[in-house]
Amino acid sequence: MTEATPAATTAPAAPSTRDRLLDAAADLFYREGVHAGVEALCRAAGVSKRSMYQLFGTKDDVIAASLERSAAAHRAALLPDADDGRPPRERILHVFRRLEALSAGAGFHGCPFVAAAVELKSPDHPASQAARRHKDALTAYFRREAEAGGASDPASLARRLTVVFDGANSFSVVQGRPLDGLAVSMATTLLDAAAVKEG
Amino acid sequence: MTEATPAATTAPAAPSTRDRLLDAAADLFYREGVHAGVEALCRAAGVSKRSMYQLFGTKDDVIAASLERSAAAHRAALLPDADDGRPPRERILHVFRRLEALSAGAGFHGCPFVAAAVELKSPDHPASQAARRHKDALTAYFRREAEAGGASDPASLARRLTVVFDGANSFSVVQGRPLDGLAVSMATTLLDAAAVKEG
Repeated sequence: MTEATPAATTAPAAPSTRDRLLDAAADLFYREGVHAGVEALCRAAGVSKRSMYQLFGTKDDVIAASLERSAAAHRAALLPDADDGRPPRERILHVFRRLEALSAGAGFHGCPFVAAAVELKSPDHPASQAARRHKDALTAYFRREAEAGGASDPASLARRLTVVFDGANSFSVVQGRPLDGLAVSMATTLLDAAAVKEG
Repeated sequence: MTEATPAATTAPAAPSTRDRLLDAAADLFYREGVHAGVEALCRAAGVSKRSMYQLFGTKDDVIAASLERSAAAHRAALLPDADDGRPPRERILHVFRRLEALSAGAGFHGCPFVAAAVELKSPDHPASQAARRHKDALTAYFRREAEAGGASDPASLARRLTVVFDGANSFSVVQGRPLDGLAVSMATTLLDAAAVKEG
């Protein structure tokens, strides 16, 4: 989950055309789906179509790169700090508490990575591959914490927690309302079933 | 889960234009997403755009009606017969076994109802409402069986089972491969946690 940090500079550089395009793409595709058009994307980013196609060969590449670029920020919003001193069980539940909070935010549409994979219908699409890498990183986080917490089968627990995470996202999207403790209580049941200790 | 059955006739009637259009829509939208175009839809259905717009005011209405029309068949593929004599616990696990089998089928793209809601990004869209009704019917099925099986909190168990169902769908879509027992084993853990008896 560690990310390379850019070298410190005296003043923040203006975002490059590439970064502006990818940030606008992540926002637009999350709000409207990855089928939003290139016209709308370039308008939102303030970038010409010509510039877009000079930077990226295809719109599919833009979708994939925008997911890649947003993955670190997305995980930072969900995961606790690397060494917050809390027991693994709490560090796992933190993710589900964050999900519950995020689901109450304006403009919540579930997990952007799952949404892209669901919309694209092709596991080989570069954006579906990016979604899989992100989701695998979440599962790997759960697994490390499950191991540290003495889970009876850390790999299995990590997959189960990922299923609850994604299913709770779907539940909130389908019902059109925030989660109300469902994700945290299910994660708790799975942690208990895997004998992950409290402290 | 009961559906009105049409009056018996001596020979099956040819499908109406409406039914042909909705069946083609359900198929196309599942394979390509609800953003597939009206041109492609009318071509697949062998129906003119003029006919489509005479039957349905908007494409949004076609999406909603196609989900409504496919809901009964979808539940028939997942749920056991009404009176198969098996204990409630087995009747719940049946749904997850069916999901595991369906996820191994060619052209599996997860739950079509969740996919539509995820793609449309609007809980008020008529198709998102249709998706919610279908999902609520699945949750109601789980709840009835959970009650019959003596679950400690049938409403809570039913919501949890729905989350596992949707999360397992997402897992298969994101990973691009069939489930391998994950959905059944998670449902089993939740049934055990809710003290649903074996027979």
